[in-house]
Amino acid sequence: MSERSVFNFLNPEGGIPRELTDGMATNIFFGDNVMISLVRCEPHAKGSLHSHAEEQWGIMLEGSGKRIQGDETFEVKKGDFWKTPGGTEHTFEAGEEGAFVIDIFSPPRDDYRTAGSGFGKK
Amino acid sequence: MSERSVFNFLNPEGGIPRELTDGMATNIFFGDNVMISLVRCEPHAKGSLHSHAEEQWGIMLEGSGKRIQGDETFEVKKGDFWKTPGGTEHTFEAGEEGAFVIDIFSPPRDDYRTAGSGFGKK
Repeated sequence: MSERSVFNFLNPEGGIPRELTDGMATNIFFGDNVMISLVRCEPHAKGSLHSHAEEQWGIMLEGSGKRIQGDETFEVKKGDFWKTPGGTEHTFEAGEEGAFVIDIFSPPRDDYRTAGSGFGKK
Repeated sequence: MSERSVFNFLNPEGGIPRELTDGMATNIFFGDNVMISLVRCEPHAKGSLHSHAEEQWGIMLEGSGKRIQGDETFEVKKGDFWKTPGGTEHTFEAGEEGAFVIDIFSPPRDDYRTAGSGFGKK
């Protein structure tokens, strides 16, 4: 039987769970070059400022929030997507209705290959 | 002024346009490691079977369709996302209401850096 290749972001079965911070949890899926992270944020959940070598993109499917990266702050809403080059300090704060964001990383983050908590190594 | 880093998939301004085939058009955004392709398919639009070395993921945001890859065929609907390893022959056929799919490639596809048509080099 071949490896599973179809998943669903409304029911993230098959992903590796991770609690990023209070009110911000994800399920993670790995390819060879890409890692997909389905991040659900409760209202006003806020990450800590961090960076990593891997390039990251975020796609906002629900809600709103504030994306901070480098020296810029963007108010983001449903439909917005953004690029965060590797090595850029960044964080996210959900708006009052919370947020659902699909994050894309390349290359995959080895520190997320097992279930755990936190934003991983700096 | 820094390079633009926030876009919107409901209004794909800033992307490079490409007509993949009749009834299937995209706008493309580049990072260093990732390429994002916002593919809008008219009802029953159908791609041709093709492959490329780059890993690909598809995220279905609207509609439904049939994903064919390798020797498997998947009926896909809103919320589904799928992994297509590099070098795997694949195609997509939209259902009766059309489809909106965000495709993710890594590494980026150099043959998509300029506006054009078709699925690019084999």
